Amino acid sequence: MKKEKVSSAVIRRLPRYYRHLSALQRAGVVRISSNALGRNMGLTASQIRQDLSCFGEFGQQGYGYNVEKLRGELSDILGMNCGHTAVVLGAGNLGRALIENFHFELSGFRLSAAFDVDSAIVGTSISAVPVLHVDTLEEYLSQQPASVGVLTVPGKSAAEIAERLVRSGVRGIWNFTNMELDLRESGVVVENVHFADSLLALSYMISEE
Amino acid sequence: MKKEKVSSAVIRRLPRYYRHLSALQRAGVVRISSNALGRNMGLTASQIRQDLSCFGEFGQQGYGYNVEKLRGELSDILGMNCGHTAVVLGAGNLGRALIENFHFELSGFRLSAAFDVDSAIVGTSISAVPVLHVDTLEEYLSQQPASVGVLTVPGKSAAEIAERLVRSGVRGIWNFTNMELDLRESGVVVENVHFADSLLALSYMISEE
Repeated sequence: MKKEKVSSAVIRRLPRYYRHLSALQRAGVVRISSNALGRNMGLTASQIRQDLSCFGEFGQQGYGYNVEKLRGELSDILGMNCGHTAVVLGAGNLGRALIENFHFELSGFRLSAAFDVDSAIVGTSISAVPVLHVDTLEEYLSQQPASVGVLTVPGKSAAEIAERLVRSGVRGIWNFTNMELDLRESGVVVENVHFADSLLALSYMISEE
Repeated sequence: MKKEKVSSAVIRRLPRYYRHLSALQRAGVVRISSNALGRNMGLTASQIRQDLSCFGEFGQQGYGYNVEKLRGELSDILGMNCGHTAVVLGAGNLGRALIENFHFELSGFRLSAAFDVDSAIVGTSISAVPVLHVDTLEEYLSQQPASVGVLTVPGKSAAEIAERLVRSGVRGIWNFTNMELDLRESGVVVENVHFADSLLALSYMISEE
C-alpha cells in the first residue's frame, strides 16, 4: 500500500469511520453491513467499500464488517498504535481547554508537556501536564522527542515557534493559530484547524435560499 | 437552486473556496483560472467548475474567475450577509478562547452574549461580550433571537442546553461538546466540531506505512 496514492478525501473519511465504528461498538453492535454503515454516515455502500479497498480486504461479501475488528484495523491504519507523543505550545485559553478537555490518549497520543512564556503559569501543571518555559523547548525535545506540536500560540508567534518545532524534529504540527504555515520544504505535515470553515458550513445550512 | 440537492461534500468545500479566494484577494490577485485555483487547493479544475455549477454561472470560458466577484458571490451563497447572530453557551476555557480570538464577524455573525453558571464571571464582559446567567437564556433570546448557539458547556449539560436553545428558536447549534445531539425532529441543524478527526488525519499522515 502506497500512502501517497490515497486521496485527501479518503484520509478525511478515515477518522469518521473510526468514530462511527467506536459508537457502534459502544452500542453493542457486533456486525454491520456497508449499507447500514453508509446510511449511518451519509455515504453510499460502494463509497465505503472503495475507501477501505485502499488498505486491503475488509469484511466478507454478504456478511458485512465485524465492528470491533474493523475498528481495530482502522486504528492501525490511522497510526493510533505508534506511540505518538504531543506537546502543546501556548497554554492560554485554547491550549488549556485542549489540555483539560481533549482526550489525546483516545487518539493514540500521549501529551507530555505544555510550553508558555507566562511566568504565572510556567512551573505549574494543568491536568497533570507540566507547563514549561518556551525557552527550554529545544532542550526538552532533544531529551523527549515529540511527534506533534499543538500550536495554540498567538498568531504573531506562530511562524517562529513552528520553525523551532521543525528544527527540533517534530513530524507534524496541529495548527490552531489560523496563520498559514509554509513548511512544505521541511517535510513536516501541517494540519490546520479552521473553525471558520465549520461555522460557514453551518451558516450555509441555516440560511434561506 | 434547490439547496437539498447540494451534496454535503460540496457544502464542505464552499468555505474552503471562500478562504482561498480571500487569501488571493489579500495578495492582490484579480483573476484566476480554475486550473490555478485547483492547484492551490488540491482539487481538479473540473471539480471546481462542477461544484460552482450547483449555484449558477461563474467565470467566463477562457478568462477564469474574477477573484473579488466570486468571493462576494460565495459569501452570499454561504449566508454571510444574512445578519446572523450567535450566543456562546459556556464561558469556560474554550468558550472564552472563541470569544476572545475567533472573529465571528468575519464569518458574517454578530456575537451578542455569552451564558454561564459561574457567579465569578456572570455580570462581567469578555472582549465586550456580556456574560449572563444561563437562567436568563430564554428571556434573553425572546428579546434578542439568535441564529446559532455555540455549545461549549461541559458534556453532561450539552443535551439540556441544546434542548433549551431549540425551544428558544435557534436555527443551528455549533457543537464543541463532543456529545451527539439528536435534534433531527426539531429541524435545527447541528454542526459538530470533532477535534479528534483532525488529529487522527494528522496521525495518519505522520505514521509509517
